[in-house]
Amino acid sequence: MISVVILGAGNVATHLYKAFKITGDVKVTQWYNRNIEAINAYKNEVSITDDLSQLVEADVYIISVSDDAVKGLTKKLSFENRLVVHTSGTVKISDIDKKNRQGVFYPLQSFSKSAKIDFANVPFCIEAIKSEDYHLLKDIAIALGSPSKKVNSDQRKVLHLAAVFVNNFTNQLYRVAHEITESEGAEFEMLKPLILETAKKVQDLSPYVAQTGPAKRNDKKTLNKHAKLLTNRHHKDIYDLLTKSIQHTHGRKKL
Amino acid sequence: MISVVILGAGNVATHLYKAFKITGDVKVTQWYNRNIEAINAYKNEVSITDDLSQLVEADVYIISVSDDAVKGLTKKLSFENRLVVHTSGTVKISDIDKKNRQGVFYPLQSFSKSAKIDFANVPFCIEAIKSEDYHLLKDIAIALGSPSKKVNSDQRKVLHLAAVFVNNFTNQLYRVAHEITESEGAEFEMLKPLILETAKKVQDLSPYVAQTGPAKRNDKKTLNKHAKLLTNRHHKDIYDLLTKSIQHTHGRKKL
Ligand SMILES: NC(=O)c1ccc[n+]([C@@H]2O[C@H](COP(=O)([O-])OP(=O)(O)OC[C@H]3O[C@@H](n4cnc5c(N)ncnc54)[C@H](OP(=O)(O)O)[C@@H]3O)[C@@H](O)[C@H]2O)c1
Ligand SMILES: NC(=O)c1ccc[n+]([C@@H]2O[C@H](COP(=O)([O-])OP(=O)(O)OC[C@H]3O[C@@H](n4cnc5c(N)ncnc54)[C@H](OP(=O)(O)O)[C@@H]3O)[C@@H](O)[C@H]2O)c1
Repeated sequence: MISVVILGAGNVATHLYKAFKITGDVKVTQWYNRNIEAINAYKNEVSITDDLSQLVEADVYIISVSDDAVKGLTKKLSFENRLVVHTSGTVKISDIDKKNRQGVFYPLQSFSKSAKIDFANVPFCIEAIKSEDYHLLKDIAIALGSPSKKVNSDQRKVLHLAAVFVNNFTNQLYRVAHEITESEGAEFEMLKPLILETAKKVQDLSPYVAQTGPAKRNDKKTLNKHAKLLTNRHHKDIYDLLTKSIQHTHGRKKL
Repeated sequence: MISVVILGAGNVATHLYKAFKITGDVKVTQWYNRNIEAINAYKNEVSITDDLSQLVEADVYIISVSDDAVKGLTKKLSFENRLVVHTSGTVKISDIDKKNRQGVFYPLQSFSKSAKIDFANVPFCIEAIKSEDYHLLKDIAIALGSPSKKVNSDQRKVLHLAAVFVNNFTNQLYRVAHEITESEGAEFEMLKPLILETAKKVQDLSPYVAQTGPAKRNDKKTLNKHAKLLTNRHHKDIYDLLTKSIQHTHGRKKL
């Protein structure tokens, strides 16, 4: 049984807590948050605290607080030589105070408190200085039913950056599509199966192979029709840049 | 039983033919292609032809040929006053020669010959001049198990344009993410669950509500870290434009 102390009570910490509760191999022995109100509802099932000096001994301390707070919080820990990991895509592993053994346990997924998470769909990027620590973190991922991968700091940073492209930026394209359809009283609803299909397609094919459409074909007639339809300058800028980008990828244009 | 003649043997025509074959309510009575080789394999199960003057009578003629060929092909039809529809997102309904009853049966999905299509995920945009024709096309969608919607020409055009954003442009963002991860030897594979989750999220939430991330939060520290990581100017242009777009949508910046 792996013993875990969770620090923080945000989206990630709360989903981790709930997921650990139903695994057989990991036990959350304590849950810390600076504001105890946020975890008060759990006090009958787990030991809760808002006092760092009261932290019990555990195999690993998972710090899941705002990026900016990670460094300061690990400085304040009063023990030494234990495994302390954060869950951030961008915070340096060395921001964890070096009196403890440093690690990263970064879940490459988008969490929100209300939405359910299936941890089978949460790949963990694991970083650790010591090999035993890496294996312990890997066992925690296995207990959650999650895939995991040893990832160095540079790789974790670019994965976080790439995640912004496939998550935030993709979602913004959906938003633009919503604006475009609504402007003519058409229904965004009609695009939902295509949105899902587009995401499914690259589960098996590379995005390069999966590409289709007027930009790739350099279908000037359709590109011109679209240019005329795009009355919003801002939508047009996105259309032009991504069309150029596709044509660059598929060898039609120099940038 | 609704009788259909299909004209064309590309991605859409072929998927439609195969889907009709297994419905009880629609029968393909003939399949035309200018190049008969493309449909020769089906000659034992359906009447095939490459001769427009040999077309049999049917309830509807579905023209699924390249956009540029629709107008000319409908001009060459030797009958009158029958229902003739095309399957294009951009071709005008009036491009169908007016000696016949005009209609549009546009499937808002991405087809490729190799990939399987579940028609439950293919919403049809239906346009027709006569109300009986609209109902016949709706019945065909129902027979396929597909959702459908009455959509006028302006709405169809913006849906086609919006489809480029959620399909081609989104796929290009996946491609950029692929380039970014590979540049550090990280695995694009790790992003696949997030790609799927992002698409699933907007099946229930609006893209506006679903948005998260550093651009929306105006998290300058992360935005700056990403700016430093983006060595490819072209990736940086996309990053900057879509960050600005998110901030505009969420009230942080004027464009
Ligand atoms: N959300 C995601 O999709 C996601 C995905 C992958 C990784 N991550 C990473 O996971 C970590 C947590 O993210 P989250 O989304 O769960 O955050 P969140 O929901 O915003 O919650 C932040 C938590 O940090 C605590 N906190 C903030 N400042 C603190 C300080 N100075 N001292 C102690 N605690 C402090 C807050 O405590 P109070 O309750 O007292 O305010 C709260 O419990 C971050 O490193 C983030 O980058 C997030
Ligand atoms: N692919 C999609 O994802 C998709 C989605 C929605 C709507 N659509 C629309 O569906 C229609 C067909 O698209 P597709 O992707 O199936 O096309 P495709 O795979 O490129 O096939 C084109 C077909 O048109 C025929 N054709 C081309 N020029 C012709 C001409 N001058 N006279 C007669 N036939 C001609 C070709 O005949 P040969 O076999 O003899 O070359 C071929 O059978 C288009 O209007 C397209 O906009 C496509």
